[in-house]
Amino acid sequence: MHLTQALHKALREQPDRDAVICGAERLSFRRFTERVARLAGALKQLGVAPGDRVGLLALNSARSVEFLYGCWWSGAVINPVNVRWTPGEIAYSLDDCDTRVLLVDRSFAPMIAALRQQSSSLATVIYCGDGPTPEGLLSYEALLEAATPVEDGRFGGDHLAAVMYTGGTTGRPKGVMLSHANLYLNGLCAAAAVPRPERGVGMVVAPFFHVGGCGLSLQMMQRLVTQVVIPFFDEVAIFEAMQGEGVTETFLVPSMIKRLVEHPRFGDFRFPRFAVMLYGAAPIDATLLAQAMDAWPGAQFSQAYGMTELAPTICVLSASDHLPGAQQARRLRSAGRPVAIAEVRIVDAEDQELPAGQVGEIVARGPMVMRGYWNRPEETAQALRNGWMHTGDGGFIDEDGYVHVVDRIKDMIVSGGENVYSAEVENAIALHPSVSMSAVIGVPDERWGERVHAVVVLRPGAALEETALITFCRDHIAGYKVPRSVEFRTELPLSPAGKLQKFVLREPFWAGRDRRVN
Amino acid sequence: MHLTQALHKALREQPDRDAVICGAERLSFRRFTERVARLAGALKQLGVAPGDRVGLLALNSARSVEFLYGCWWSGAVINPVNVRWTPGEIAYSLDDCDTRVLLVDRSFAPMIAALRQQSSSLATVIYCGDGPTPEGLLSYEALLEAATPVEDGRFGGDHLAAVMYTGGTTGRPKGVMLSHANLYLNGLCAAAAVPRPERGVGMVVAPFFHVGGCGLSLQMMQRLVTQVVIPFFDEVAIFEAMQGEGVTETFLVPSMIKRLVEHPRFGDFRFPRFAVMLYGAAPIDATLLAQAMDAWPGAQFSQAYGMTELAPTICVLSASDHLPGAQQARRLRSAGRPVAIAEVRIVDAEDQELPAGQVGEIVARGPMVMRGYWNRPEETAQALRNGWMHTGDGGFIDEDGYVHVVDRIKDMIVSGGENVYSAEVENAIALHPSVSMSAVIGVPDERWGERVHAVVVLRPGAALEETALITFCRDHIAGYKVPRSVEFRTELPLSPAGKLQKFVLREPFWAGRDRRVN
Repeated sequence: MHLTQALHKALREQPDRDAVICGAERLSFRRFTERVARLAGALKQLGVAPGDRVGLLALNSARSVEFLYGCWWSGAVINPVNVRWTPGEIAYSLDDCDTRVLLVDRSFAPMIAALRQQSSSLATVIYCGDGPTPEGLLSYEALLEAATPVEDGRFGGDHLAAVMYTGGTTGRPKGVMLSHANLYLNGLCAAAAVPRPERGVGMVVAPFFHVGGCGLSLQMMQRLVTQVVIPFFDEVAIFEAMQGEGVTETFLVPSMIKRLVEHPRFGDFRFPRFAVMLYGAAPIDATLLAQAMDAWPGAQFSQAYGMTELAPTICVLSASDHLPGAQQARRLRSAGRPVAIAEVRIVDAEDQELPAGQVGEIVARGPMVMRGYWNRPEETAQALRNGWMHTGDGGFIDEDGYVHVVDRIKDMIVSGGENVYSAEVENAIALHPSVSMSAVIGVPDERWGERVHAVVVLRPGAALEETALITFCRDHIAGYKVPRSVEFRTELPLSPAGKLQKFVLREPFWAGRDRRVN
Repeated sequence: MHLTQALHKALREQPDRDAVICGAERLSFRRFTERVARLAGALKQLGVAPGDRVGLLALNSARSVEFLYGCWWSGAVINPVNVRWTPGEIAYSLDDCDTRVLLVDRSFAPMIAALRQQSSSLATVIYCGDGPTPEGLLSYEALLEAATPVEDGRFGGDHLAAVMYTGGTTGRPKGVMLSHANLYLNGLCAAAAVPRPERGVGMVVAPFFHVGGCGLSLQMMQRLVTQVVIPFFDEVAIFEAMQGEGVTETFLVPSMIKRLVEHPRFGDFRFPRFAVMLYGAAPIDATLLAQAMDAWPGAQFSQAYGMTELAPTICVLSASDHLPGAQQARRLRSAGRPVAIAEVRIVDAEDQELPAGQVGEIVARGPMVMRGYWNRPEETAQALRNGWMHTGDGGFIDEDGYVHVVDRIKDMIVSGGENVYSAEVENAIALHPSVSMSAVIGVPDERWGERVHAVVVLRPGAALEETALITFCRDHIAGYKVPRSVEFRTELPLSPAGKLQKFVLREPFWAGRDRRVN
């Protein structure tokens, strides 16, 4: 199970087909592999040994794909850096796993000075952007030109392939360690779970620093699919790529799908070959699905559910579950059923399995489970206790075996012995026309343990009273779920990745107390 | 990568669905797993330790499937015995890998006395047939009833799962060692290569002592597909099972497909759910394919190519290649393209890779390659030299990446520096209306190294002269391929499995000489 196996196959089976397309750049599988072998040679000359981490701080490009395979060819471990982070956060993640070599493109080269100041491990920076190489950086193209191509080291199996930092919403980011086997099996299983046209053309929009991006890229390589890489989300660039290259499949998040189908220029393009729309990160609502199925009548829709620690997919809501029918609305709210390599179950706080329909923590077992968090034996042991990966997602499995995600476990509120899912309360609040955003948290309560508290941002110009919103909620959700108190603010605390940071909201309420988290 | 993982998934996802159906017997996944856990307990009580081999000498039945999973649950290694072999051959294979416990059904119980005489390792025989247990054998059902169900040992990865004896056509059978990972990955890859209806109903006709049978059974389990097990090839029983259980997929060899579609009662049955016909062991001819596609208009056809040592599939000729079109005839003669986990190449006698179109030996690399032959380090090293499994099949890869099998390497004839493929000559001879069967071999020739010699069986009542057949062949194949000599016989030497034994024909010609084999 070597991730580089695909390149050897492609060299023999279709060397002259396009492997990677990005804008005007196109690389055949032959040319791509030549460059990968040179990049591996260059990394070796720079002192990168098998198992060493190499970073990438860049928008998606053809070189992002070369980075993946150049590292794996040489036995190195990819550490693709979240470009939305501050220099301090990036420096932390580089130092945490001792990443000494970093590739940077034109967009992020200006950040290097700050990174050099804040990172103790960063030693060598390679400029993989367009145009002249900035002072003090090595030129990627010059390195490749000067390098002696090396033989594939054929690293695979349990050999480490990636350290992917997940921001999480609390504390320092953790480096998720994924092996070649983890990623190889996920790719193979995804191919089995979501049938796709043979040797088609895929499009990678998700950033490579998410496993949704680099994982998709390697899955496509594994199936010898040509991949069109999109540097950043831009509707018209996507339409042009889809039409021009005859894209057959992609992966997006529902909000991106919405932006595409509602774009005024959508109708100017034709996508006759587009066959498979995979989406994830959130369920799709029935209205958007109908709109999207109408926009791409030849496409089948499937949802993938998972997380970085699971390399990433453990459930798939298949194309047949998206078709109109009696079960559609119910099915669309779920994350689908476990894929062939994943065992999924629901457990309580004592790790006891719960029966169908009962909400607890979603845990998973199988060969896709990460090797652990880099240098964090305690958090690893906690996450993988009793042999199962604890996702931190709260959910249940219905009688038909579909997994439903209801909330992050730590965001669930236990009030008077009843579980309240913050997501459900937030959905009720969102129905009020004056509300822009809300965050529902549990705050300490003498009588009930926790009580439901809502922090609300109103739409510009709107006005709303606490009691009016509480009354409104009573019409939509059960009494014990209704917020006992509401607080209005002008904004909510977000992480650099745009994730709501509820722990920031909870902090003042819980200062000096312990809040139980399942 | 535990082969038993599927049972844990099924227990959670669909415990009440049928797992295995055989005749009137049906076992839900829950009941099946309970019995498997008891069988594992019984094996343990009989002294079977993890890694020990357990044999099965039986027609296909629900208990054949229990045998697979009972062994794997306990860490034991399956050794399903070829029921077509003589007691001497079976005793050899049991003793070769020290199989002490054997399950036997009613059909083969009468052979036990002879086996006990000839085998030195056989100690315990369990009767898994219907009706009363014969004297001296243990009752399968009584063992299960008395056994304490055990926890799944969760053996997987490189742990040995099977020793499968391949008769081969020369010498003693060799025990092919397959690991859990080999079989698990093959199943997953097959699911990706041949899309099938989700959670359908499969039918297993191939015998479990071939990897085509037990491998298919485990693939279906891995996808949580209900499996209908057919004890032996019987057209009407197959029609009844397909119609009655709503079979959606199966695997057959072309000669079986022919027997089905040409059966006079075919038209009495309806197969509206039948969707996937996988076939293998031989290409399908265009006439039969058209006939079969007409017979099952809702079915897609795919071909799998491989061998026991490859667990087994390395190439698939996909459904789209079977559709009528310009390429169809050419594609149907091929074995398809390499699957995602397999690298396939063609090498010469010095293991140098040959370019597209040139004939040499087909070799393969990937995580499906066997761990070796039991207790045969030299033959293992020879078969796996330079890291590739040498299939012994001669063939070429065309410019589109399709693999074509032309002959067994050892059956190729090198005459005056030209390669002659015995299969091609046999195909030409078969065109003559008087010929029933033929075998073409290379015999020593002072001038040309080898010359082409044909051994021919005529149809009953037919008469043909050597010179007439030679003249006939001249019209169909190039001069250097035409037999220089023809010998008529009443029968050809066949192995118990029905394989033509060319080495028997060659022996008298080559006595005392060395014949080069690539």
